[in-house]
Amino acid sequence: MHSTSELHPDAVVIGVDFGTLSGRAAVVRVSDGAELGCGTYEYPHGVLDRMLPDGSTPLGHDWALQVPADYIGVLKTAVPEALRASGIEPTRVVGLATDFTACTMVPTTAEGTPLCELPEFASNPHAYVKLWRHHAAQPQATRINELARARGEEWLGRYGGQISSEWEFAKALQMLEEAPDVYAAMDRWVEAADWIVWQLTGNYLRNACTAGYKGNFQDGAYPCESFLAALNPGFACFVADKLDQQIAPLGARAGGLSVQAAAWTGLPPGISVAVGNVDAHVTAPAAQAVEPGQMVAIMGTSTCHVMNSTRRRNVPGMCGVVDGGIVPDLFGYEAGQSGVGDIFAWFLRTSVPASYSDAARVRGQSLHEYLTELSAGQTIGGHGLVALDWHSGNRSVLGDHDLSGLVVGQTLSTAPEDTYRALLEATAFGTRRIIEAFNDSDVPVTELVIAGGLLKNRLLMQIYADVTNLPLSVIDSQQGPALGSAIHAAVAAGAYPDVRRAARAMGRVRRDAFRPIAANVVAYNELYADYLLLHDYFGLDGADLMHRLKARRRKAIQDVRA
Amino acid sequence: MHSTSELHPDAVVIGVDFGTLSGRAAVVRVSDGAELGCGTYEYPHGVLDRMLPDGSTPLGHDWALQVPADYIGVLKTAVPEALRASGIEPTRVVGLATDFTACTMVPTTAEGTPLCELPEFASNPHAYVKLWRHHAAQPQATRINELARARGEEWLGRYGGQISSEWEFAKALQMLEEAPDVYAAMDRWVEAADWIVWQLTGNYLRNACTAGYKGNFQDGAYPCESFLAALNPGFACFVADKLDQQIAPLGARAGGLSVQAAAWTGLPPGISVAVGNVDAHVTAPAAQAVEPGQMVAIMGTSTCHVMNSTRRRNVPGMCGVVDGGIVPDLFGYEAGQSGVGDIFAWFLRTSVPASYSDAARVRGQSLHEYLTELSAGQTIGGHGLVALDWHSGNRSVLGDHDLSGLVVGQTLSTAPEDTYRALLEATAFGTRRIIEAFNDSDVPVTELVIAGGLLKNRLLMQIYADVTNLPLSVIDSQQGPALGSAIHAAVAAGAYPDVRRAARAMGRVRRDAFRPIAANVVAYNELYADYLLLHDYFGLDGADLMHRLKARRRKAIQDVRA
Repeated sequence: MHSTSELHPDAVVIGVDFGTLSGRAAVVRVSDGAELGCGTYEYPHGVLDRMLPDGSTPLGHDWALQVPADYIGVLKTAVPEALRASGIEPTRVVGLATDFTACTMVPTTAEGTPLCELPEFASNPHAYVKLWRHHAAQPQATRINELARARGEEWLGRYGGQISSEWEFAKALQMLEEAPDVYAAMDRWVEAADWIVWQLTGNYLRNACTAGYKGNFQDGAYPCESFLAALNPGFACFVADKLDQQIAPLGARAGGLSVQAAAWTGLPPGISVAVGNVDAHVTAPAAQAVEPGQMVAIMGTSTCHVMNSTRRRNVPGMCGVVDGGIVPDLFGYEAGQSGVGDIFAWFLRTSVPASYSDAARVRGQSLHEYLTELSAGQTIGGHGLVALDWHSGNRSVLGDHDLSGLVVGQTLSTAPEDTYRALLEATAFGTRRIIEAFNDSDVPVTELVIAGGLLKNRLLMQIYADVTNLPLSVIDSQQGPALGSAIHAAVAAGAYPDVRRAARAMGRVRRDAFRPIAANVVAYNELYADYLLLHDYFGLDGADLMHRLKARRRKAIQDVRA
Repeated sequence: MHSTSELHPDAVVIGVDFGTLSGRAAVVRVSDGAELGCGTYEYPHGVLDRMLPDGSTPLGHDWALQVPADYIGVLKTAVPEALRASGIEPTRVVGLATDFTACTMVPTTAEGTPLCELPEFASNPHAYVKLWRHHAAQPQATRINELARARGEEWLGRYGGQISSEWEFAKALQMLEEAPDVYAAMDRWVEAADWIVWQLTGNYLRNACTAGYKGNFQDGAYPCESFLAALNPGFACFVADKLDQQIAPLGARAGGLSVQAAAWTGLPPGISVAVGNVDAHVTAPAAQAVEPGQMVAIMGTSTCHVMNSTRRRNVPGMCGVVDGGIVPDLFGYEAGQSGVGDIFAWFLRTSVPASYSDAARVRGQSLHEYLTELSAGQTIGGHGLVALDWHSGNRSVLGDHDLSGLVVGQTLSTAPEDTYRALLEATAFGTRRIIEAFNDSDVPVTELVIAGGLLKNRLLMQIYADVTNLPLSVIDSQQGPALGSAIHAAVAAGAYPDVRRAARAMGRVRRDAFRPIAANVVAYNELYADYLLLHDYFGLDGADLMHRLKARRRKAIQDVRA
């Protein structure tokens, strides 16, 4: 490994961010994190949710698959494009790192070949990559949760009391039970985050982040054989046979770039490649937010919250706490809101009349800008509304995807900008509820750092500062995850001794970009109390009203299909 | 008085309906209720809610006044127009009757001259007609209710436990306290329904309907002097000095048409004029719905429910029960929903996107028709929503105008037609809640008869039949109130012995136009249980959430004005 001083002052690294629909590569200077060039590549197959690429195999409801060759396309296309855009000689590149969506799972042979690339499985959906948002393993997840509760499994508390249908065990159990032949043929059940590093280096290592957050790895162990056997006798040896693999800390060097991967990317063979990582989690160092108490909210269609702490506590409703899950030597916490930006987008698409879209067009504004401007001048509470932000369910702290949205307080003078603002506020209240769960569990949140596309809305940011009564910092990069991966690449290349120090040099943040306004904090405290009343009534005490509504809707859809 | 046989077989009567913005006259054949011609007249001053006609005297928030000369304009214009349109000789007209909005109050001299027509009061708002929707006497109404509750006044139960700020005593007390000079100069405090008859005949009689529903007249007495003195010492003799007057039953002859009124209308002097009446209440005979158990719902921007019974019971949350309040010798009940059609109109105006209004235009449909068509095919409950219809507050059974609207169950796939249908259903649930209050109080509802503009929406009608599990009849007249007044004119002229028999001959109804569909009734029973849960939580147990929301909105509006 190099030490910083050994590196050329203009040394660069490559960060590659694998998203849901595309991959993006960035060339980043090691000394200061300057972003010098980038490239993107859309996955040709996108998300498979209706049909396999064979054009004849239909997929069930809630399925979401991908094709692993698309990921290799990112290496072949986006990386060279980023290099060209930067004008940097490939010889100056000293390292590469990647981040991925999670939990996204690839079933492979012992050599890492995806089963879907074997001719005999090309038309079997279970042989493909199960994308994070594949939700068809809910029955298995429910059984895992019920059994874990019944047996008092200690690891369950580390996940806020339940695991998700998106995670490694639920998806694997679904495969065993629905496609035992594919399950039998599978040697390895690999996180895509680790599979891509395997392809880059020839080494298969599991990263500490997904092993902990998505693979139920806690205190050095997976769920035990007797637990797995109780789920399904055929599942007893799942860990030993398919899953277990050396776990490596984040920022560690997984190996050198293979000759084949060097040919794909145009990079020098042998440069350092970091162990895999997850898009949300690499964003924390990119925003210089890896110290205890700095909560990062990555706000886009949904929001993911990540934060480090020196303490391990079971925070109710969080997604998980993992030792070294964000940076080594700290406990990394994750929580989330399943709907944020997509609620605002839904409202604009379905609930704003022509008079408003016309007015926005005349003023040369987007409808978001126009509604934001109309609602920005309102007295807090003046719209007379309060909303629940559960249009996609509630991830934290209720962990209930059958909840739904609510608006209360409408009168004949309620205008679209009133409801729009109430929805913005509802998502801020949702974040506050999560922060309070951390504070109440002795894991205090002291600063909120915002990343993701929604940070452009200044009204929304001020509302978040006022609602949470926390100073708001915002990431100062258009591509937080790729920058975060680049930071890990620099650490793996030995340019910095650890991720925290690399983050200080390379991360980009505008500190305290929004500060809470005292009078607004007081006004929002009142409104938040009403949000909380609704939160607890409909989320906990409300006689299951929302569950009944959702069940009726589901049944009606089934009846129409039948 | 004539008996039917003495009348010419082609004898006609005139019904005149005084609405909120205009008056409408209809020429109706006595023998069968055929409508032969009509005329309308818009009040030149409309509703005064910002400024007096002097152009310089501003009105406070919640004020709503009218100019009595506008009512005379209806007699001078709409009645001759209706006669011309019918082609009938005035000599064939044997009677005239009127109905009015209520409670709409005229302060007059001893001769019936409105105080606003005296030069010294022309710029004093309290000298004008206080229209039914003048709500600025709420503080007085609140005091009246609190005192009546504290003293255990028996009449309070006859009004569902509270009187409205719209009614005679609250409006008079406001005048005493805000304009004691006008109060002192006022000899008579007259319902507009009776004032117009006074103008037509020269006789001042109070009609049994408004005296009971709006004037707190129960069991032959008004609230007593000691009660009034406790409200305000200056109010002690209000009844004796300003209000008390002979009360006449509905359908009785108030007198003959005066020479002056004959000149206004072009009708023969001396023909019978009936005692005054109220728009909603005259609609019951027009729809042949005056028998016990036949509930009439007049559905427009709001809904008014009226029904007769042989029993007098204190139905919780009803607007009032009055002996002879709809027809003599039966107990007349009134209840209501403060927002119905105006909720649908608000939704269309504020919450439906351009893609929908464009599609409706292309198909040559109104937006109501388009949304109705889109939602008509849905499985009941398939939208996954339930709403509360309280955008204008709740009149019955909660009697709380600070409640507000609510929609619960929204997801990212909720479409405008889903919410539209949920709002239609919410108003039907509101009607069912009222019907159940009657049923539970031993005043059973056996048939629902619909009048008013909303009966044109067939989906809405079927929903009402299914939700209430009652056969739905619909009035078969475009102008129910004017027809109802004509029926009273025929009775006053002696053409029929009473209103019930006149209604049988002259009323127009399509009996059982919509019948409940058994499977739909079952499905709606489920959804109604959820409506009821929300109704009771937000209306009764919900820790005053909606009140707080409304208070914040009110304060914000005041702050902006200040």
